[in-house]
Amino acid sequence: MVERVWVDTRGRGLHEITAMVAAKVKIVEGLCTLFVRHTSASLVVQENADPSAKADLERWLDRLVPDGDPFYRHDTEGPDDMPGHIKAALTATSLSIPVLEGRLALGTWQGIYLWEHRLRGSRREVVLHIGP
Amino acid sequence: MVERVWVDTRGRGLHEITAMVAAKVKIVEGLCTLFVRHTSASLVVQENADPSAKADLERWLDRLVPDGDPFYRHDTEGPDDMPGHIKAALTATSLSIPVLEGRLALGTWQGIYLWEHRLRGSRREVVLHIGP
Amino acid sequence: MVERVWVDTRGRGLHEITAMVAAKVKIVEGLCTLFVRHTSASLVVQENADPSAKADLERWLDRLVPDGDPFYRHDTEGPDDMPGHIKAALTATSLSIPVLEGRLALGTWQGIYLWEHRLRGSRREVVLHIGP
Repeated sequence: MVERVWVDTRGRGLHEITAMVAAKVKIVEGLCTLFVRHTSASLVVQENADPSAKADLERWLDRLVPDGDPFYRHDTEGPDDMPGHIKAALTATSLSIPVLEGRLALGTWQGIYLWEHRLRGSRREVVLHIGP
Repeated sequence: MVERVWVDTRGRGLHEITAMVAAKVKIVEGLCTLFVRHTSASLVVQENADPSAKADLERWLDRLVPDGDPFYRHDTEGPDDMPGHIKAALTATSLSIPVLEGRLALGTWQGIYLWEHRLRGSRREVVLHIGP
Repeated sequence: MVERVWVDTRGRGLHEITAMVAAKVKIVEGLCTLFVRHTSASLVVQENADPSAKADLERWLDRLVPDGDPFYRHDTEGPDDMPGHIKAALTATSLSIPVLEGRLALGTWQGIYLWEHRLRGSRREVVLHIGP
């Protein structure tokens, strides 16, 4: 079964989508695969307990791939255009999570996040494949 | 169903394989998973519109993981040996894309690329699993 | 079918799990998906021939994401806490490998590794989904 979810990101950073994805899972056992249909947003599984871990992860990647680096030639859409593509390439476009006893087999501290890489954010689409 | 495709890379960089993969997809709905059988080549979904995005992505990763860094001890196959393994670890070895209405559910600007990390290139094999 | 394997890591670094995963694969053709249930351990497919490649990969990532960087604000669990999360985000949480003729379709030099990012290590769980 293929489903779609949409996430309205209001700006750069990690947006938790665990509940939204879990709500689509109606099988007892199987596999749920997420695919993000964009080249400047990506997927990551991260700690959902302490918000400082999330903040440090965002800050660290911003430092590794800074906005407006004169090294970039591709800047049609602004100083955060090329960093968005690089960050997406370094993280995941697809992610597969087994389903066990009717639930996503996430660890105790794991949450699923859509990582928006553009400063302004936008409406992002994630396609889900859910199979036995 | 398991299929195989081969890509003759003539050198380092992103080689688009979207059409080659799409040609193997003959189901209406399901999931297509790609797996690259090498440790110095990888997979990435990136913008296929403006070639400067592709070029900047390649240049950026070459700067992060430079050839011939004296830090590397493993250099049996030359100055691009170890950078190839590191770049492969930072990007994807497998990638799953849902199939919807008989097509890969890629976004408008998304293309699938095999990323060759060795300077010389070679014949690369990607195994595809296509299921309902 | 969903299976689980446990890996007792005794410290940071790549722990090969190829044989452990292969032992669970009892189908002739299909797909085997691995998912790691932690945010400071991850998955990677790497060369299993020359141990110096593995060592350089570990050293390189330790240099990119050093322990105890004053940049991190999240350090509840020590100087290797935040680097663990960052390294996990840069590598894979899930990995899918086609099965062909009763075997994982790994390349000649490919091994599957659990990458422990915490200095002390611990008991890590990988959930496997194996389907046709």
